[in-house]
Order: sequence, then structure tokens, then C-alpha cells
Amino acid sequence: MARISFTKGNGTGNDFVLIFDPNNELVIDEKQVAKICDRHFGIGADGLIRIVPSKDVPEGESILAEEPSAYWFMDYRNADGSIAEMCGNGVRVFARYLTDRVGVQLAESETLHVGTRAGVKDIQRNKAGFVVDMGRWRPETEVVLVKTNGMDVPRPGQGINVGNPHVVVALASNEELKALDLNHLPKLNPAPEAGANVEFVVPNEPLVANGVGRISMRVYERGVGETLSCGTGIVAAALATRFWAGADAPNHWIVEVPGGSCGVRMFATEEGEHVGLSGPAELTFDGEYEL
Amino acid sequence: MARISFTKGNGTGNDFVLIFDPNNELVIDEKQVAKICDRHFGIGADGLIRIVPSKDVPEGESILAEEPSAYWFMDYRNADGSIAEMCGNGVRVFARYLTDRVGVQLAESETLHVGTRAGVKDIQRNKAGFVVDMGRWRPETEVVLVKTNGMDVPRPGQGINVGNPHVVVALASNEELKALDLNHLPKLNPAPEAGANVEFVVPNEPLVANGVGRISMRVYERGVGETLSCGTGIVAAALATRFWAGADAPNHWIVEVPGGSCGVRMFATEEGEHVGLSGPAELTFDGEYEL
Repeated sequence: MARISFTKGNGTGNDFVLIFDPNNELVIDEKQVAKICDRHFGIGADGLIRIVPSKDVPEGESILAEEPSAYWFMDYRNADGSIAEMCGNGVRVFARYLTDRVGVQLAESETLHVGTRAGVKDIQRNKAGFVVDMGRWRPETEVVLVKTNGMDVPRPGQGINVGNPHVVVALASNEELKALDLNHLPKLNPAPEAGANVEFVVPNEPLVANGVGRISMRVYERGVGETLSCGTGIVAAALATRFWAGADAPNHWIVEVPGGSCGVRMFATEEGEHVGLSGPAELTFDGEYEL
Repeated sequence: MARISFTKGNGTGNDFVLIFDPNNELVIDEKQVAKICDRHFGIGADGLIRIVPSKDVPEGESILAEEPSAYWFMDYRNADGSIAEMCGNGVRVFARYLTDRVGVQLAESETLHVGTRAGVKDIQRNKAGFVVDMGRWRPETEVVLVKTNGMDVPRPGQGINVGNPHVVVALASNEELKALDLNHLPKLNPAPEAGANVEFVVPNEPLVANGVGRISMRVYERGVGETLSCGTGIVAAALATRFWAGADAPNHWIVEVPGGSCGVRMFATEEGEHVGLSGPAELTFDGEYEL
């Protein structure tokens, strides 16, 4: 038993237990992570983030070769204890912790480089909180039919891979979005081999105002169920909607999710188009827990 | 803004934020309670318990007239901020806090008297953790038909009032219990005016072993949804099952709920039969939160 200090934080309701471990001393096994993330018997969270120096983790060598200033590494685990590569909401909360609690300096125009299992991520401050470069993406070519309770007929979904697989479905109205019963896994046909997160989106009225596209969305996360927010899902939803909106569609989107709203921007880089996710990140409380 | 210290605890997964306020100084309004109990944006809990001296609350005069040693009062609020009279799992966690953190002495054979909005409650230690006298109860005379997703036909439910209204439904098998979809409010016919908590129970095989009755149960709490445990629901389920089991049924029951198991004992008192609830109570972590 060891008494550990932690901080709880969230980005659009996607919530995390943050543990600062500057000497990479803590070993928290899968069962302990699951117990910590249990909302009734533990602290409760969607995931656990350990903040450790990149140089101390196996991934550190390639991370520091890519970007020597990526001092801190986000050791992210899902609520069930399994290891995850990246989390678009979690990485903003990670940045909030570094700037507010660790004393990492980050001026408006500067970029913070952090290590993750998906490589180095670039983070900047913005009005909403933080914006993170989520990197490259690709559409799937095969259309998937999606059916869930509260939809009258199966509807076609656009597959988008943004590091993990998503299927995005357009609905006709906010009423239909609200009426969806996402207590059950949506049926996908054909079913992607590794499953997929499913996003249901509705365009706002009008879809584009002042050069910014606006949609509302709900998400069913693979292996989790409906959540208040999903960073990669928000990005996938904006990408699919831009595709459906045609050649004149904007490269800046606001996506409303049950837990708040995030911005998505598509921008050119040397290696091709990247997509950025921006949104709030807050720390909610501090605590001590017997591991 | 004030920084408050709190402790999180649970009894069979029914979980609470405990705030020790020995001078009755903290005013926490309904919105603040709801924010604190929010599982993603706050600390997260089924309810908030403020620990204050009985003499400092409006209910204190009658409580101390009933039992002068009932020094501490359980100011219980539901997760939505509304005021609640009592909570069978919460009062055990309240006792755990008093004995482990406040230094209240409670030997095996002694009784701890605590103030609640439902009057003075008597608590003792036992093997499971604590046992609390839940007081008097009464059956309802009208049978209610209950139907929910996962049940093939409506089934008759027994109404039991244990301070709050319950309807208990017997199912045939554990398979049927597991198959119930409690994401939606069960339909009650006729519907009790103030609604009711609904318990679905299955007898273990055998129902009675070594003089102890055993059942498994799931519960849908009025205004909340399915929960891991409900103290009054456990008591109601044992009372209804004893009634169905006939004249030779035992007065001691073990009730398995998704969050663990509790004991129920019916016993004679001067004012008639009382029912006691026993079960675990644990403190999980300590924290600080900006109110």
C-alpha cells in the first residue's frame, strides 16, 4: 500500500485521474487502474494519465529522437486498465496540468511538445483552452450501414480513420438525435473487424455561418458505450461532414457534444493535411488515495 | 470560493461525498451539490453527506429530545441537490466516518445514535460492517403489474413502504434477472401516485439454508435509474420474499445486489416489528475541492 496524490480533470466531460510521477517510480497494474477508475468503488474516470519523463519510458528513445524538447510523456490507460495510444481530450488536460501545476511555460504563440504512444503531439494555447495537432487521417472506401434503437431505418455511415476507426452517420434532425437509444451497441453492416466508434451527427441551421461549419453529435465508443465526448470522434465527425458538404465546405468546424463543444481545423502541412482539435481542459479536484 | 476537504465513501457501491463540518459553517446550495455529485465535471457520487452537530440544525431539537446522545446529524442530499430524509447505505458510511475519522467510540455491544431527517437511527457494529435499525414498515394492499424490457409478460409486484415506496417483483431465474433491460423506467399498472422504486428478485437455490433466506436482486431507483445498491430496496425485497415464502420463512436474509451483499433482519420491538439492514461501509479516498 502506498498513498498516492492525484488530480482529477476533464475536457468536455471526458474525465481523467492525473498522477504526477516525475521519477517514474509508480507501478500501477491493470487491476489497480480499473479499481481507481471505478466510479463507485474507486476515484472514477474514463482513464488514468501518469505524467512521467519521456526519457524513462520504452517509447522515449524514438520520441526524443523526433523532438528533443518532448520532456513529458503521457502514459494513458483506459478505464479497464488497458493501454491506449492517445486521447484527444486527455492530452489537453495533460497540457493543463503541465502548465498550471508543473510550471511548464507556454506563451500564446509557443508549441508544447509532449510524448505519447502515438508519437510526439504538438499543443498550443487558444481561446477555448488548448489545441492539439491530431495528425493525419484517411477515409474508408466501403460504406457501412448503421442501425440502432430509435432510428427507423438503417442509414449509411462514412468510415474515417484518425488513428482509430470511426463510422459517422448523418441524421435529419435534432429530434432524431435526441431520440436515439445508445444504451446498446449500434449494429454495423458489414461490421468492421476491429469494431468502430460510431458518431451520429446533425447539421446546425445553417450548417455554415461566418465561414465556420457547425454540427451536433452523439457518440458510442467501442467497448465503452455512450460518452459525453470523444476527441477522435469529434474530429471524424467534422471530417465526414466536410466531405458531405462538398467542395466549398469550410476547414473550421464547431462540434457540439453532450459534454460541451470543441473546435476542429483542417490545415496543410509538409506531409499533407492535418487536423487539429481544440477545446476546454480543467482540473476539478485534488486527492489522496491508498494504492 | 472556498477550498473544502472531503472524503469519499461507499456501501455496496452506493457512494457518497462526506464533508465534516463540526461548526455547521458550510452553506452548500442545491446547484453546488449537483456539481459536486456530477461524475464527470465534479467529484461524483450518489449523494452528499454533511456531518454536523444535531444541536445546530432545525431538526436538532426533536432529535435531541428523542435521544440526547445523538450528537451528530446526517445532512443528506441526493445527487440532484434535493434533500433526502435517510439512506440505508449512507448511514453506515456516516458511522464509518465517525468511528474511523472523528474518534467516536463504538464497542461491539454498544449502540451509536445518529440524527437524520427521519429521526434518530440506531447503529451497531457487526461482522459485515455496521447494522442500522431501519424502523417500521408496512405492505400495500393493491397489487401492481410491472413490465420492463426483457420480461416476456407483466408480472405482479408487491408494494412495500419502508419510509419510501417500493414495488418488489419475483422473477423465475437468474437468467431472467440478468436479461432485464433497466435502462428505462419500468411500467407500473396502476402507477403509484408518487412513483416507486422497483426491485426484481430471484430466490437462490435453495431459498433458505441454515435458517437464512437468500435472494439476488436488481433495483431501479425512482428518478435515478438502475443503481448498484439501494438500502431501503434491499429491505423491501427481503420483506416481500419473506411474505411470499409463508409462515415458516426466516427473519434473517442475505440479499445480493450488483454492488455486493447486505443482511436484513426482522426483529420485535415494543412498538412492533422493526427491520435492520447490515452491510459494509468503506472510505475510499480524501480530497480537496474548490466550492
